Amino acid sequence: MRKSSSFYAVILSGGSGERFWPLSTPERPKQFLTVFGGKSLLRQAVDRLKGLVPPERVLVVTGKALVKATRAGLPELPRANIVSEPCRRDTAAAVATACGVVEGRGGEDAVAAILTADQVMRDVPAFRRVLADAARAAARSDDIVTMGVAPDYPATGFGYIHVGKPVDIGTKTVFARAIRFVEKPDAKTARRYLASGRYVWNAGMFVWRVATMKAALLKGAPALAILEATVASCRTARGVQQALDTYYPQLPKISIDYAVMEKATNILVSSGAFGWDDVGTWSSADKHLATDARRNVAKGEVALLDVSDSIVLSTGPQVGALGVANLVVVATKDSVLVADKSRVQDLKKLLAKLNQNGA
Amino acid sequence: MRKSSSFYAVILSGGSGERFWPLSTPERPKQFLTVFGGKSLLRQAVDRLKGLVPPERVLVVTGKALVKATRAGLPELPRANIVSEPCRRDTAAAVATACGVVEGRGGEDAVAAILTADQVMRDVPAFRRVLADAARAAARSDDIVTMGVAPDYPATGFGYIHVGKPVDIGTKTVFARAIRFVEKPDAKTARRYLASGRYVWNAGMFVWRVATMKAALLKGAPALAILEATVASCRTARGVQQALDTYYPQLPKISIDYAVMEKATNILVSSGAFGWDDVGTWSSADKHLATDARRNVAKGEVALLDVSDSIVLSTGPQVGALGVANLVVVATKDSVLVADKSRVQDLKKLLAKLNQNGA
Repeated sequence: MRKSSSFYAVILSGGSGERFWPLSTPERPKQFLTVFGGKSLLRQAVDRLKGLVPPERVLVVTGKALVKATRAGLPELPRANIVSEPCRRDTAAAVATACGVVEGRGGEDAVAAILTADQVMRDVPAFRRVLADAARAAARSDDIVTMGVAPDYPATGFGYIHVGKPVDIGTKTVFARAIRFVEKPDAKTARRYLASGRYVWNAGMFVWRVATMKAALLKGAPALAILEATVASCRTARGVQQALDTYYPQLPKISIDYAVMEKATNILVSSGAFGWDDVGTWSSADKHLATDARRNVAKGEVALLDVSDSIVLSTGPQVGALGVANLVVVATKDSVLVADKSRVQDLKKLLAKLNQNGA
Repeated sequence: MRKSSSFYAVILSGGSGERFWPLSTPERPKQFLTVFGGKSLLRQAVDRLKGLVPPERVLVVTGKALVKATRAGLPELPRANIVSEPCRRDTAAAVATACGVVEGRGGEDAVAAILTADQVMRDVPAFRRVLADAARAAARSDDIVTMGVAPDYPATGFGYIHVGKPVDIGTKTVFARAIRFVEKPDAKTARRYLASGRYVWNAGMFVWRVATMKAALLKGAPALAILEATVASCRTARGVQQALDTYYPQLPKISIDYAVMEKATNILVSSGAFGWDDVGTWSSADKHLATDARRNVAKGEVALLDVSDSIVLSTGPQVGALGVANLVVVATKDSVLVADKSRVQDLKKLLAKLNQNGA
């Protein structure tokens, strides 16, 4: 890194709380769940940065409704580092906001990593090595440095990045030019990607110099470049908040992949393997939870009789399951979910139906 | 009926609350449930007697823990008519107790019907006709008059009574001699019983003169005959209660079928059809509940998406069910059951497991 630059970490912590309902709710989305490892995913995301980024340079961009819980969960962060989005405008707006805040504090040569709050990493030291190397690469160049993940199975649930020639920048981590960002593939395509060795998972984490991101925003989403500049010019956290309250409702709802990454030609990709997973839905959650001899996950006051391949969790009532298989059963004091594992991707539809009934 | 005799109704209202867990609990067994018709089954059992037996002659024999709830649910009954069993000693002890109480009030010629609190009857007028005729038959004879139910399918969940020659006692209801009481049959035997036309279901309801039951107890269960005589000699409800508290713990745990009915030779059987069912378990409960186009029962704040042949009930939390079939899902604020319909007969084992975990 250049001497003059400082390194910031920006954790995007949004989420609608639907995919892990009823444990997650709009007021308590996935990143606040503690079932995956005792500490919340958000807490884990911040803890992974210890010694690498001091708390004063860790920012969290989150929804208005989650600010209070975020502050309570991360008391070591300065209050001004929890940036509140007044409404949901997808990831591009959040990145532009973060870029503006970082520029306001560290100038155009400051480097920032966009990280996520709702993922698990089993090999934290490996993650930290790659992140540090990516920061070095971003500081030295005009490239956006994406932290790809070497795939270990033909996942259809993630986007991929097609990687080209390796680029040696003198770090232990190997980088390569990104050729193309691609959407979630079908199973056949995913197998081809895996076999080729030329594709990595898009984990949604990337590192850049402020000047680099500003240029990319100007090219890909001018409205967001204006937001960025406005935020950068604010002198106080209060000023930033007022700017967001004013401009956010009018911003386009687009993802950073769509606004920037898919169009940019200056993208480097690191491809580490640090046991990354995005804890997507209930059906994949058992990968991160201890199972019994019949491949069940049981947590809380729960009794299982002749149950297999099921996830049975309770944070409140006692739950008895009898003679069932391949189910997800999750109970809180307010709500109960009973779903076939193969159907949890339709949870959103079920919630719409529940809310409709309740209305 | 002889002029001198009065007619009493005794409702046996025990139950451990296991078969409809978690809606039923030890403190709130099946007969208190209101899902089967708005009013509790116990309330329905008493209401069926209106005009036939006045409240002063309706007795309820129940467990100590249920006395308060029973009084609250049946405020029109005199307090002394709720007889409290200090511990569980099966049906023979309850019948002997009831016989003693009735003798104490109405003498040896009083007639009493033993009825149950946890059954449904769809044709109440038919039931009342048969009950009145059974009371007439019992008053005029030294027979125990059992109210059999003409079977309409080859049930394997009930005991049967093999009936012999018809006996005309001048009532609209036809009676016959009982040849033999038989236990719950297997499916093949049940089909044979149904085809023969010579078997009726043993509904656990029977009518007798006090003198008749006293003789039967003396023959079949002498210890219970002593209890009966002791209770009959008590002058006050308090005295009855003290006698029960003293003797109950030492009584044998036997059913009235085993102690009396299977041995007695003086048994008449009526065979009416009054839409009787014993609301046995969750898996048969949907017979008594309204179903939707996919054969689901849904009650409470419940949403179903691609669910079929399931019972989903909640008295508390909202419940969402997704992509499941043949399940019983029952949620209260304290407990949740998720069971395959074909397995609900094992609920007792599941509860043992839950209690074990909780201990």
